Amino acid sequence: MADQKVYKPKQISGFPEWLPEYRAVELQWLDKIRKVFERYGFCSIETPSVEEIDALLAKGGETEKEIYTLGRIHDDGNPALVADMYKYHLKAGKSKEEAHGIVTGDLTNYFSHSMEAEAARAKASDQIMALMATKETRLALHFDLTVPMARYVAQHFNDLIFPFKRYQMQRVWRGERPQKGRFREFCQCDIDVVNVDNLPLHFDAELPAVMFEAYQALDIPPVEMHINNRKIIVGYLQGLGVQDIPFVTRELDKLDKIGVEKVTKILTENFKGDAALAQKCLAIVQIQSADNSFVDKIRGLNVTNDLLEQGLNELKFVMDNLQHLPKESVVANLGIIRGLDYYTGTVVEVRFKGKPMAIGGGGRYDDLAGSFISQKLPGIGISIGLTRLFAMLLDEGYIKPGAKSPTQILVVLPDESRRTEAAATANALRQRGYNVELFHSDSKVKRQLSYAERKGIPYVWFPPFEDGKPHEVKNMASGEQVNADPSAWKI
Amino acid sequence: MADQKVYKPKQISGFPEWLPEYRAVELQWLDKIRKVFERYGFCSIETPSVEEIDALLAKGGETEKEIYTLGRIHDDGNPALVADMYKYHLKAGKSKEEAHGIVTGDLTNYFSHSMEAEAARAKASDQIMALMATKETRLALHFDLTVPMARYVAQHFNDLIFPFKRYQMQRVWRGERPQKGRFREFCQCDIDVVNVDNLPLHFDAELPAVMFEAYQALDIPPVEMHINNRKIIVGYLQGLGVQDIPFVTRELDKLDKIGVEKVTKILTENFKGDAALAQKCLAIVQIQSADNSFVDKIRGLNVTNDLLEQGLNELKFVMDNLQHLPKESVVANLGIIRGLDYYTGTVVEVRFKGKPMAIGGGGRYDDLAGSFISQKLPGIGISIGLTRLFAMLLDEGYIKPGAKSPTQILVVLPDESRRTEAAATANALRQRGYNVELFHSDSKVKRQLSYAERKGIPYVWFPPFEDGKPHEVKNMASGEQVNADPSAWKI
Repeated sequence: MADQKVYKPKQISGFPEWLPEYRAVELQWLDKIRKVFERYGFCSIETPSVEEIDALLAKGGETEKEIYTLGRIHDDGNPALVADMYKYHLKAGKSKEEAHGIVTGDLTNYFSHSMEAEAARAKASDQIMALMATKETRLALHFDLTVPMARYVAQHFNDLIFPFKRYQMQRVWRGERPQKGRFREFCQCDIDVVNVDNLPLHFDAELPAVMFEAYQALDIPPVEMHINNRKIIVGYLQGLGVQDIPFVTRELDKLDKIGVEKVTKILTENFKGDAALAQKCLAIVQIQSADNSFVDKIRGLNVTNDLLEQGLNELKFVMDNLQHLPKESVVANLGIIRGLDYYTGTVVEVRFKGKPMAIGGGGRYDDLAGSFISQKLPGIGISIGLTRLFAMLLDEGYIKPGAKSPTQILVVLPDESRRTEAAATANALRQRGYNVELFHSDSKVKRQLSYAERKGIPYVWFPPFEDGKPHEVKNMASGEQVNADPSAWKI
Repeated sequence: MADQKVYKPKQISGFPEWLPEYRAVELQWLDKIRKVFERYGFCSIETPSVEEIDALLAKGGETEKEIYTLGRIHDDGNPALVADMYKYHLKAGKSKEEAHGIVTGDLTNYFSHSMEAEAARAKASDQIMALMATKETRLALHFDLTVPMARYVAQHFNDLIFPFKRYQMQRVWRGERPQKGRFREFCQCDIDVVNVDNLPLHFDAELPAVMFEAYQALDIPPVEMHINNRKIIVGYLQGLGVQDIPFVTRELDKLDKIGVEKVTKILTENFKGDAALAQKCLAIVQIQSADNSFVDKIRGLNVTNDLLEQGLNELKFVMDNLQHLPKESVVANLGIIRGLDYYTGTVVEVRFKGKPMAIGGGGRYDDLAGSFISQKLPGIGISIGLTRLFAMLLDEGYIKPGAKSPTQILVVLPDESRRTEAAATANALRQRGYNVELFHSDSKVKRQLSYAERKGIPYVWFPPFEDGKPHEVKNMASGEQVNADPSAWKI
């Protein structure tokens, strides 16, 4: 070990970790969120951190670039190199045999710089044969908890009771370029309800209510639930005769980021100069109301469409069923689109009052598990972006550090000869439910008190320093020190 | 979505997941373990799932083959291919410029099968330039929680209070060939104490005691703490004049797996035919005692060595300080070696009584964080192999399923017109601390009862079906149904 060089550790960008006093707060958050989820009958599940790449991509998509795949350190030869070359040719339309020929030939040439060409050819050939023989399963870290949940429900379909209400609080990974407020590894807290064939609309109101309660439990600035229904915007655009609806909704979703002017320009161009049409598109997504006045505002736009009508009724139903939440904490916001393609009805975004950034969100999907099972499994889910939320409030100085230690009582070690008695005192207090440390070494009392102070331990217990003397306990905040009985004293 | 093909999901070997009723038990376990850890003043930390590969390998080792590295899906060109080729030549001793020339040249030739050679050369050149410009950080999933903890302590050294007592309950990953009882992803629950310069020996007794209490909290078959001290075996082998001590300890560690005969044979060969020496090596590792009689047994082997003497005193101290644990739950077992090279003193292995398999373990290390920081940071840590333990007892049928849902009370929905009242009843019960579901649809009472039964919900609440009638509650286990007041009734 003496000749081992020191490898200076540093923070890896996008992979946060907290000091114990902040982790203590995060842990409290997780406990509180879980408690709310369970209070509404959501059960806990966890899924593996990895899925097969094919499963992750089953819904297709733009997420591909964000996926972290798993590989291995190759100590001998370079199977990854060979596999990549081989697959490159398969992708280019070559047959397995052709690809095999090309790669082994190339490698003979390629490796001739540094090792015997014949050996390289033989090794590559072996590796390709192995690749061809086994159906290779490539694994990747999940980028959300919704796709794994859908896979879980499909896989365990016969063992679950529907409607299946689950919560999942796990880490997810996204290989984004890290920037402020974005992480490559972060914790999400999701609830979803999935049912067979048909999922009652009441859940579209229940889930935002549960989530609102979860945020409220956290002692953070007040949040607003912004609610919309995809059917409204899609029906409205259909009613307007818009052709490329996915493109238009995608551009409308950028409103908060790039502003009205730019979006109008992009849409007008797409509509071959029809600026009036662009303005009509923008009109709807700027409607917001904390009551049902959004209905009249939309009707005032004079577009008729069945899907629009259905969406309006659904959103009105959800708003009506959230009347029990505090006034103005629920907003019908027609500008909420949410990027993911699988949402088909209600969409939800959680924001701090007056701030546009999402700190949570979700929506209803009609067939998310449909890529895994022939059964129709509609669902609705909402997710708290826990790490992002926590990091943001930490950064703003809003989160105050918790204790550096869960210890409530430090038992002083009078001296080594009295260790047995001191240990017995510590155990007696533990058995009464307190978190207790016995000081680890025979040191001056001043040093032991300083340790308690630095760790934020609220009480210091003095077992008798001589036989027959009483126990004493010191309240570190008030400085008060009193006689106490370890079998009866209470915090 | 209509033309989306169904991707049939399956279990990925080595990556376990549980049904909700078993996850409920696992979650209880985690809660109980955490409670014990906190009771002794260990604070929670979590570290990222990944570390830089260099950090993971800083202690060197045989773990390399088990490490999962992170990669990306490459949709355009093939940077991984280029990077691999480039690094291959660097490793073969070429300069950066030479490697650059070889790879771009080769790729011109290589890609000529399928795309324009000049374009390939230009692209490869760009990619290599980028590689040369950035100090690339390769990331990998951690394979235990000890190395990340050591890195954490070194990195946050100035912000931590020592002795630093932390617990960490996280997933780790090992790319082993999966076999029964082995997982590629699993949860570990670790406690460690780390101090600056010197760590009192009392912690060598405290940690096994804490861990014993954690196992006891789980309602599993009785466990034994098998304790040894590396100094004993190393000192003993030194005293015998054995040359290659790492080799000999490694072979002795295989005793349980391959038996006395084989180990004797291997050692005798290593000792150039000295069978008596091999037998002396085997003699010590077969010593076990639930009391301090191991001391006399070792002295009876007539080997004198200072390190051996030091180890004996330490082990005796630890055994003496574990006297408060139940009789015969602590065993001085001189055969406990534990594979990892960084242990330097006390080593611990947790087993079920009468079974050789480890269900947890750990030990003392004198300089684990020494590869990250110049400060000397000795520590001791023990880990519960939670997933392995859980899976084993599940497999043996020892773990009984918990509830499929955390719901304690299902509130019946009499009919749609009474939803508001039923929802208010559910909320009243929730505010009193119960986990409550309101049935999701206007269905026959029989169907609602069946839902409660299938989900294992213990109570079904009947709000009034007509105005002025009383609430009733049914105990699903006993079948008893009585009048009840939602503001006063207790489970």
